[in-house]
Amino acid sequence: MTPDLMLRLRVESFLYDYAAMLDDERFGDWPNLFTPHECRYEVLSRENVDLGLPVPIMSCYSHGMVRDRVAMLVQGTLTYRKMKLLRQVSNVRAGAEPDGTIVVHAGLTVYQSDEEGVSSLYIVARYQARLVPLEDSFQISVMKVVVDSFGIDTMLAVPL
Amino acid sequence: MTPDLMLRLRVESFLYDYAAMLDDERFGDWPNLFTPHECRYEVLSRENVDLGLPVPIMSCYSHGMVRDRVAMLVQGTLTYRKMKLLRQVSNVRAGAEPDGTIVVHAGLTVYQSDEEGVSSLYIVARYQARLVPLEDSFQISVMKVVVDSFGIDTMLAVPL
Amino acid sequence: MTPDLMLRLRVESFLYDYAAMLDDERFGDWPNLFTPHECRYEVLSRENVDLGLPVPIMSCYSHGMVRDRVAMLVQGTLTYRKMKLLRQVSNVRAGAEPDGTIVVHAGLTVYQSDEEGVSSLYIVARYQARLVPLEDSFQISVMKVVVDSFGIDTMLAVPL
Repeated sequence: MTPDLMLRLRVESFLYDYAAMLDDERFGDWPNLFTPHECRYEVLSRENVDLGLPVPIMSCYSHGMVRDRVAMLVQGTLTYRKMKLLRQVSNVRAGAEPDGTIVVHAGLTVYQSDEEGVSSLYIVARYQARLVPLEDSFQISVMKVVVDSFGIDTMLAVPL
Repeated sequence: MTPDLMLRLRVESFLYDYAAMLDDERFGDWPNLFTPHECRYEVLSRENVDLGLPVPIMSCYSHGMVRDRVAMLVQGTLTYRKMKLLRQVSNVRAGAEPDGTIVVHAGLTVYQSDEEGVSSLYIVARYQARLVPLEDSFQISVMKVVVDSFGIDTMLAVPL
Repeated sequence: MTPDLMLRLRVESFLYDYAAMLDDERFGDWPNLFTPHECRYEVLSRENVDLGLPVPIMSCYSHGMVRDRVAMLVQGTLTYRKMKLLRQVSNVRAGAEPDGTIVVHAGLTVYQSDEEGVSSLYIVARYQARLVPLEDSFQISVMKVVVDSFGIDTMLAVPL
């Protein structure tokens, strides 16, 4: 097995755990997936990315901001329409950079289901991430979520 | 390669074969994927699972009931609106229990296409399975399909 | 790891690169994924395939026709409603034939997002491909895209 293929498989497992954590609404654990000091979580519209415009829909550019992103979710003080989400990560591609970090591209679709059990497509997006390898897992240095469906009809209450 | 990663890959192949068998409507072969005597196939609503309520939408709790589930499909005596289904299994996670059985979690979306070629999202669900390892494959001891989209607008004519 | 499993993983990587190339609209590179002389790219309706009727929706049965398929896209002379597409390849199954070629089955869903950022399900289909192994990748001998959603409401402007 080539190192490239092995890397893809390990990144897949990491992203599946990442998605399961969010699907299961274990928001308090989510910041622990990021590197402890400098890290970045951003949601960007595909439109801006394609035009080379840097403004994101949302940006957390320190670990404190990442923790703050989910603070109200953990405390339960944020009120929003309860939706069950299912994240499907697809077509994962990963490569190692000369500095040892891992560049990741993947597709993402998110389905929402309301309390009456009616499901619909919620988000179509792509993950563009930079990971730092640990002995048997990874930490997220940069997680950009580029959304094709930036005409988002519901509040982005939870991380993607 | 770690045993955990190897296990995930083997379980993925098994689930892809499981889904292809159902997509191809080879219903007569489906019971052979289950353990011969005690086994369980259940469809549960996400709502009940979250509330800790045990009642499933459908339950087959013996191999005979699993065979019975598809008997009318195999004989062709069940009449229902013909829909082509495509099952997408995603984000497979698997782990071995101390007793040697394999616990599996995965996402599932099913798309339906009618005879006029119009497609739509049919089911959003999660597989929660327990598998028994064979030499080069698995048998299903428990297959729970937890459906987010339990407001199902069409008859559950075929297994998920 | 069994050769079958290893083959599946390598085919997955190939199909993920194939999909990324089309998602990124690098249409000029697409013909290079096919075998240089004889090759075939076809889009077929599920209806015809199920009835054993051979007529495809679209067929390119030489490398020149494959190049021609994307010529107007590369030159930018084809005018069509710009849609961002995300291809999700799923449930990849692969097996080696006695003659050394690789037979591949996979699911495919394609999501389209318009310039206002509104996303919807575009295509539900299945890849049925025959690949020729190279030292560290593959070339496409036959790529059949069997579409369940053959009631296609937009022009098939780009390859699937």
